[in-house]
Amino acid sequence: MLCSFCSNQAVYRSPYSGQAFCARCFKRNLEERVRTVINRHKLFEPHDHILVAVSGGKDSLVLLNVLHKIESRYTGVKLTALTVDEGVKGYRVSGVEIAKEASEKLGVEHHIVSFKEIYGYTLDEIYAKALEKGSQLHACTFCGVLRRKALNLKAKELGATKLATGHNLDDEAQTVLINLLRGSVVRLARLGVKPPRLWEGFVPRVKPLRYIPEREVALYAYLSGFKLYEEECRYVRLSMRDEVRWMLNRLEAKHPGMKYAVVGAIDRLAPLIDKEVKVEVKPCRHCGEPTARDICRPCEVLEEVGVLS
Amino acid sequence: MLCSFCSNQAVYRSPYSGQAFCARCFKRNLEERVRTVINRHKLFEPHDHILVAVSGGKDSLVLLNVLHKIESRYTGVKLTALTVDEGVKGYRVSGVEIAKEASEKLGVEHHIVSFKEIYGYTLDEIYAKALEKGSQLHACTFCGVLRRKALNLKAKELGATKLATGHNLDDEAQTVLINLLRGSVVRLARLGVKPPRLWEGFVPRVKPLRYIPEREVALYAYLSGFKLYEEECRYVRLSMRDEVRWMLNRLEAKHPGMKYAVVGAIDRLAPLIDKEVKVEVKPCRHCGEPTARDICRPCEVLEEVGVLS
Repeated sequence: MLCSFCSNQAVYRSPYSGQAFCARCFKRNLEERVRTVINRHKLFEPHDHILVAVSGGKDSLVLLNVLHKIESRYTGVKLTALTVDEGVKGYRVSGVEIAKEASEKLGVEHHIVSFKEIYGYTLDEIYAKALEKGSQLHACTFCGVLRRKALNLKAKELGATKLATGHNLDDEAQTVLINLLRGSVVRLARLGVKPPRLWEGFVPRVKPLRYIPEREVALYAYLSGFKLYEEECRYVRLSMRDEVRWMLNRLEAKHPGMKYAVVGAIDRLAPLIDKEVKVEVKPCRHCGEPTARDICRPCEVLEEVGVLS
Repeated sequence: MLCSFCSNQAVYRSPYSGQAFCARCFKRNLEERVRTVINRHKLFEPHDHILVAVSGGKDSLVLLNVLHKIESRYTGVKLTALTVDEGVKGYRVSGVEIAKEASEKLGVEHHIVSFKEIYGYTLDEIYAKALEKGSQLHACTFCGVLRRKALNLKAKELGATKLATGHNLDDEAQTVLINLLRGSVVRLARLGVKPPRLWEGFVPRVKPLRYIPEREVALYAYLSGFKLYEEECRYVRLSMRDEVRWMLNRLEAKHPGMKYAVVGAIDRLAPLIDKEVKVEVKPCRHCGEPTARDICRPCEVLEEVGVLS
């Protein structure tokens, strides 16, 4: 199989376009697609300070590298990397190291923020309290809710104007289906390509890889020789997302393009929902961060297990 | 297990409410739920002539019987039954008989309309032409497209003001997912509980069973002693709907309520999409029936196989 572009030995054939790619043309093509998405949807502006959430996993490493390649052309744009250390014993340590190294290599400023410094407790400590208290919440719930808040707090502290995350096409299609299967119409409104109306206190989030299939992100990481950490978090469990992932992969294998169709549909639907569904945001009674509730979800879960400081 | 309502022997426990039902209370409860849906969403008006599409399958028999129970209270409402005979050798014959008998038993006027009389050919003949011509269209495509038109034509001829079909919760949830997986945003607009804006020439369609799970419709049919025909159409094939059905059932078993959540979500989404997405309907160049295209889809498929009269 030869590359459809340069006739070198191909390493990948796209099931969508049927085109074959050598390593070099594949990487260029993926970068071009990300660039196109950024331009078409105006994800960034000329003087943005983009904070890239880098866990050290493949998606975030690809995001950091591709954004660096695209955005370093623009002198007004600043790129900073941020890793959240949730505090799971034996996990993330190498992720933090990989993120730090990758940032250094690109000359990108790198920051680390830990649950311990923000919330006073590591995820391990919080989850131990939860078990003590007989809480039904899973470690992944604490992790997701608290990580989102940590990213936003740190983004504001660093003066970032955009927060970029490495969610890929598979992640996005799964999230759309999960929310539909749960009937969460309001959450669907947040899943469009452009962040919905800006709420004071939330740094707008963008997902430049949202049209790139997971396997292509993984291939890019592999072809780039990125150091990957394969440790599995000890809290990992079979979640609804895993079931939906499995189903989507099964459907996609038979009908290539379905994940893309789902994400494309939500791009059209999200602004319609957003226009109708008015969510009023006010400061959290406890921490002052913006929330649609009386007390924000992060404070609520911390309160539930008695570690709200 | 005793009935939660009358303490008779229960035959069914709802995985949603946890309530147990004896045969009598189950049937009453299902009827009550259908009545509530009709009232809440104003599916019918005081002087409606409701044409019920009755194939003779369990869903349509339940629909006919439940609607007869609910609507015969209202003297202004007329109920008529219609069976479409597609013309598949060995299939439908007993379906037509069952539909006729069921209608007679209730004192409901029953009509039959055949593909042969409307299109000049049976489905068998049309599909044989398609095979001859090397068409890629499957028999199920002809069947679905032409059945919809036949129902609408006959509804208009009979002066019906509403067309009621027996789609249940499973059908509806599957259709939502299929359209999402295909990225068909415009089709999602048609899937709300109330028919979208009325287009001249289309008799509004309603689906009173759309919140009743398939297994409950089947149980109602069984407990009512309805005669069921178990013949399988010879054109049946493994379709995307079968895959989606299987997946939804798998998810629903683990997380009861998901089908309902999907249909509830589309009830909220459909009017939002409908408001934004303007579809212009004009008369088909060939037959004059309303269509968003130049030539309507039924005429198009007939033309493709050279049997458009």
